[in-house]
This record gives sequence, C-alpha cells and structure tokens, in this order.
Amino acid sequence: MYYIGIDVGGMSIKAGVTDKNGNVLHKTTIVTKGEYNAQYTISNDIHALIVKLLDEAGIAESEIAAVGIGQAGSIDSERGVINYWNNIPMKNVHVTQELKAWHKMPVFIDNDANVAALGECVFGAAKGMKNMLLVTLGTGVGSGIIINGQIYRGEYGAGAEAGHMRIVMDGEPCTCGGRGCWEAYASVSALIRQTKAAMAKHPESLMCSIAKDMGEVNGITSFKAARAGDKAALEVVDKYIRYVAEGLISLQNIFRPQMFLIGGGISKEGEFLTAPLEKLVLEGMFDKETGDPVKIRPAALHNDAGILGAAALAIKSL
Amino acid sequence: MYYIGIDVGGMSIKAGVTDKNGNVLHKTTIVTKGEYNAQYTISNDIHALIVKLLDEAGIAESEIAAVGIGQAGSIDSERGVINYWNNIPMKNVHVTQELKAWHKMPVFIDNDANVAALGECVFGAAKGMKNMLLVTLGTGVGSGIIINGQIYRGEYGAGAEAGHMRIVMDGEPCTCGGRGCWEAYASVSALIRQTKAAMAKHPESLMCSIAKDMGEVNGITSFKAARAGDKAALEVVDKYIRYVAEGLISLQNIFRPQMFLIGGGISKEGEFLTAPLEKLVLEGMFDKETGDPVKIRPAALHNDAGILGAAALAIKSL
Repeated sequence: MYYIGIDVGGMSIKAGVTDKNGNVLHKTTIVTKGEYNAQYTISNDIHALIVKLLDEAGIAESEIAAVGIGQAGSIDSERGVINYWNNIPMKNVHVTQELKAWHKMPVFIDNDANVAALGECVFGAAKGMKNMLLVTLGTGVGSGIIINGQIYRGEYGAGAEAGHMRIVMDGEPCTCGGRGCWEAYASVSALIRQTKAAMAKHPESLMCSIAKDMGEVNGITSFKAARAGDKAALEVVDKYIRYVAEGLISLQNIFRPQMFLIGGGISKEGEFLTAPLEKLVLEGMFDKETGDPVKIRPAALHNDAGILGAAALAIKSL
Repeated sequence: MYYIGIDVGGMSIKAGVTDKNGNVLHKTTIVTKGEYNAQYTISNDIHALIVKLLDEAGIAESEIAAVGIGQAGSIDSERGVINYWNNIPMKNVHVTQELKAWHKMPVFIDNDANVAALGECVFGAAKGMKNMLLVTLGTGVGSGIIINGQIYRGEYGAGAEAGHMRIVMDGEPCTCGGRGCWEAYASVSALIRQTKAAMAKHPESLMCSIAKDMGEVNGITSFKAARAGDKAALEVVDKYIRYVAEGLISLQNIFRPQMFLIGGGISKEGEFLTAPLEKLVLEGMFDKETGDPVKIRPAALHNDAGILGAAALAIKSL
C-alpha cells in the first residue's frame, strides 16, 4: 500500500505518493496563487490534485492506505477542520469531511509545523526518536512537538506555538501583538533587522558588499560575512545564536527532549549554527548531572519535507 | 482495595492510606531531620513507615493495591531510581527495587512536583482534566505537567523544570547558575527580595509595619498591604503578578492546556492573585480566535497534597 502526502501552502499545493519508507514515487503541484476564496475551493483543489497525482503516477485509489494533509494555520486535527488561517481568510473548513464526497480513503489533516516534526521523526534526522522538537526559523519561528512519538497539539490544536514564548520581558514588539516573543529575536526576519542595524553602524563591514552583490539583505548575509571573519558580522551571528539558544534553553528545561532539530533555510549553515547552539544550550541545562545532553541538528527533509511530513501523518494516524 | 501514598520531604516522611476516591483513611509521619546517609537509610525508613502505617490503620498488606512515592530531586520513575537529590546528598538509589525485599505490593516513585500535579488531576482542582500544569510558587518555582492524563517527565525524568525557562535574557542570577530564569522573578524568595527593596525605598509603606508585627518579611507581606490599598505594596504585587504571568504566557503558547493551577502558600491569595493572572495570560495568548481561555485556579489539595498525589501515582500507574 502507498500513502499520499499533501502540503498546502500560501501559493501552491504540492502532493506526493510515497511508500511506507518515505520514498516519494511521484509528486505534482498546482499553483493556486492563494486564491482560495471559500471552503469549496480548497477541498475542491485538493481533490483535483489527488486525481491528477494518481493519474500521473498510474496508481489506483485502492492502493492508497491513507492521505495526510499538512496545512498552515490553526487546525483541529481531531475533527479534520481548518479553524482559521491568517494568511488567507478561511474559517471552519471541514476539509476531511468534504473530501469524503469524492474519496473513500481515510484523510488526516494537521498543522504544517506539527507534520514537519513528525516527518523528521519517521523519515528524517530524528528517525525513531520519541521526544523531540523541530524549531523552524523563517519569517516567524514555528515549532512542532513530538511526545512519545506523537504530535502534541494542545487544546483545539492551538498549542505548540513556541515562537511566542517570551524571552525578553517588555522587549521587541512581535507580529502577534505581544512583546519580547522568541520569534521577535530568533526568526530570520529578526536576523535581517539585526543585520541591517549592524550594517548601518559598520559601513566597512563585508556584510554591505555581500548584500550589494546579492541585491538584498537576507538571512545568509551575516553568516556569509562571519564565515569570512568579518568582525561586525561575527557579532551579529553570535548575538543571533544567543537569541536562538535562549528559547531552546527554556524548551530544554521544560521538555528535556532527546533532540532539537532546526528547520528553515538557515539550517543549511550546519555546524556553524548548531555547534555553538549545543554549547549554550548545555550551559543552560537545569539538570546536567543526569543523562546525555540534548542533540541539536539541522532538519534533514529539505524539499520534500511537506510531502513526507504529511505522509508520515497518514502512516501514524492509521 | 486501598492505596498508600508516601511523601518524602527534607525533614520528614509522611504516609497515608487512601481509597480510590482520595479519602485519606489514616496517616502517619516519621521525622528524619534529613538524616538519610545512604541508600539503605531511605528505603529502610520508607519500609518502617509502611509497617507502622498499616499497623496503626489496622489494614493488611494484602488489601493494598499499590504504593506511590513522591520524592524531591531527579527521579527516574521508569526504573524506580532516585538519580540524585540536591538537598540531601544521594545518588542512584534503587528505591522500588530495595522495597521489594520487604513488600510484594507494586511500588511507583516520581518527582514530588509531578505527583502533586497528578493528584490535582485525579482528586483536586483539575479533576478529570487531561492537559494541565501545576506551577508551585515557593522557595523555587516547581512545575508538574500533565499531558493526556499522564505525567510528562522528559528524558531521564529530567524535564518539567519550567522554573528554569528564561524570561529576562541576561537577567537576575538564578540558583541554577543561569540568568533570567522565571524562578528568579516569580518564586516567593524573589517576591521577598522585591518586597524588601520596595520597603527600603518606601519606609512609610504599610509593608514595613506588617513585617514588624509578623517579625519577618515573607510572601504575605506585600499582598496583605496591597489588599489594604498601600500604594508601594500594590506596585510590588502588580509587578510580581506580571512576572508570574510572563512565564505562564510562554507555557500557554507552548501547551495550550485546559488549566493552570497555582500551588504553594501564595495560592491562598485566591482571586486576588488568579484574576489578574487570567487577564494577563489571555492578553498574551497567541491564538485567541480558537476555543476558551486557559483557566487559572489555586491548587486544592493543601495539607494532604503529597500523600494524595503519591496515591494518585499508585492508582494511575497500575
């Protein structure tokens, strides 16, 4: 039997057929440009994509054991409902129920950050781990929490928002309306702000010429200059890593997981990012006497993370 | 069948026989003055206490379904081992194994904060709840985390140390060696420091005469003066409640539990403490669109909390 993993994003929906070992046999995409304007649209688009995928792959629906959907926003996975999605206005969409009109396969849906964490546990860098967290550093700071091999969702599926832990009381304003959230310091958006501030102070810094060459300041600017030994960039990166560590220390002392995985484009910095993080996080460990330190590694499922995470959801939910 | 709950503290060990509904049929205590000097001592003391308890209660060992032990320190509940206890030097004590030499009843052991949280879920203020946290404000800030009706322990039982979340980056030094931990702001020890600082600044404050009458500055000083309308005391209490809220906001956005319970002597302040906490914590909720706010209530199992928590551990572990 095979599984279908579907990754619903703001601009497109990706789908893939996988086997139980996480091999993607075929994948396909539809571009939506975010033009979901009613609950009809999104379920209809997902349905059309499933038909297209199976047709292209030459696999019959009867060979599919289950479908998993990873979706941004607030998801009630128990009822199979998109509670709401802030990017694209959408409320109370009964996706799994609606898909039953067209398909007999069991369909499961969950938040994309949760599904990504589960994917890493089933197929990726945390394979076989029972207790781990995936922290995705991007526009915001997302988190997926795996406890005892299962996704932790909280009431109404509204938990696992570790980006909105507070790390600096009365600190920087956050997009959520609060102040001092981890996301306001450790997201790539925050890193870009920190990089720009340092560039303004240090026009001689290598960061300025790198940004000029690339045509923009992005999450790589400071890391690239720091690797070349630029002093101002090293300061930016050191401070940014301390911000990331500050939140990981809190999560470590709460969960004492086996592993933290770092997701998002910045995870490509590899050990340059994870080695100092491991050192700082161990320094902040409450109970250093007992057991091994928490491992910190980059997430492993890059391009197919969404599809494989959703397929993992299908596999683990059956 | 009955259950035995045992509460091992620094100065004494308490034990009680309960029924499955949390009625304490009989209880007894031995004073140890913390004079456990070897693994022999603690298991021996617990054994002697069980014999004494059953003898006094007139209940045969065959009527006891299981024994639960709540114990401070780092506990490996799966193996039944006290990893270590910082108050009283103790390492790798195989308590449940050692008790098997004397008793045939199943014995379970867990950290006292975990056991207290479970007790509140089984018999107390969070009766029947599946997802909740008990935060105990005392000398430190302790936490017990209940997920899906079970204690969450983390690897090696070393998790659930929410007192060592960071709420102020590079902030106040903490007893753990870190800086800016929640415990360094929200413990009663921290409140006493905050009260003393305000008293030094405001010798006219009612706090000064209250402290004089009571012979000391304690966790009640500022609350008592604040209730009487003292301005400096109101400022201390407002700020302290903001510190407590800051950590609860982080825990709320991570766990989105049904309820937070506040334990420790300060929980006797009741709604004077919990009502402003609920307001602040709701303000800091990431996803306000979905579901009900998180309830915040004082813990309910006061004097018998240790015994009932340990009995709950016995009941839930069988």
